[in-house]
Amino acid sequence: MILQKKQLDLDFKTNFKPFDRILVAVDEDDSKSSLAAFQYALALAKPNLAALGIVSVLELEDLNVFETFSPEKRNQLRENLTVDLERYVKKAQENGIYDVRSFVQEGKPAATIISEIIPEFKPDVLLCGSKTKPVSNAKKIFIGSQASYLAQNAPCSVMVIRS
Amino acid sequence: MILQKKQLDLDFKTNFKPFDRILVAVDEDDSKSSLAAFQYALALAKPNLAALGIVSVLELEDLNVFETFSPEKRNQLRENLTVDLERYVKKAQENGIYDVRSFVQEGKPAATIISEIIPEFKPDVLLCGSKTKPVSNAKKIFIGSQASYLAQNAPCSVMVIRS
Repeated sequence: MILQKKQLDLDFKTNFKPFDRILVAVDEDDSKSSLAAFQYALALAKPNLAALGIVSVLELEDLNVFETFSPEKRNQLRENLTVDLERYVKKAQENGIYDVRSFVQEGKPAATIISEIIPEFKPDVLLCGSKTKPVSNAKKIFIGSQASYLAQNAPCSVMVIRS
Repeated sequence: MILQKKQLDLDFKTNFKPFDRILVAVDEDDSKSSLAAFQYALALAKPNLAALGIVSVLELEDLNVFETFSPEKRNQLRENLTVDLERYVKKAQENGIYDVRSFVQEGKPAATIISEIIPEFKPDVLLCGSKTKPVSNAKKIFIGSQASYLAQNAPCSVMVIRS
């Protein structure tokens, strides 16, 4: 309701409190916007010596339904992802960010990040990419359902980076 | 599909390209998180001399259904909102941001921002707040449907600021 005119108080401190704990979600299936989100996470973390968390969630539902999820296959996929995340961690450290952790988890990405990673890492901001794909009428559509779920359900600020 | 292990290319420039055109949506019904989003917009815009757009959408659906939308009432509401946005513009200018525009529009906020304001202002990032409310079990729920719609549908990066 906007009928009752209330005084708008703009007498605030203009220095936004920098983010102290930054969580970035990276997705192997969307390396372009994930990298953009990671770059932005580095840019946010560096001047403030923030703690950086890097999370990737293994979506086993992505696998062809006819494949069996053998323990060996699961382990191999998880190991691949862990190796990739170590490269992100190393890149962050090379850029002067020393408080870095990585998280590898299995499940539905956005729901897993909300229910398992955020309660553990306690970020004040979560960054993620969002895929786009071209459609026929020269526009793009945004495959942002994961990003949208995070924006609606995360208890912290959320930045959806489109590259 | 993540079975085919592809090489992860992290050999990118680590300086994230700063945002050049920043649009912040402010909502009279949610002054706390709107102000946080505005503060962050100032912090983003200032070092980069970015252009800043400030938009507020008058939700006439908020009005009690028994009220008539007389032209006088509409005009009064619109004028109140315009005056408030001028205060945001002035605050931005006082903080050294000189390329500032404000937009007042009527309609459903997120849809209107996507269909009318973004095509005109062409931001590379959109900031908005997101309401929270306490619920009985000592948790909060997030009234983020507008933010979620923006995160999913905006053609640019989206930052949802929770204060």
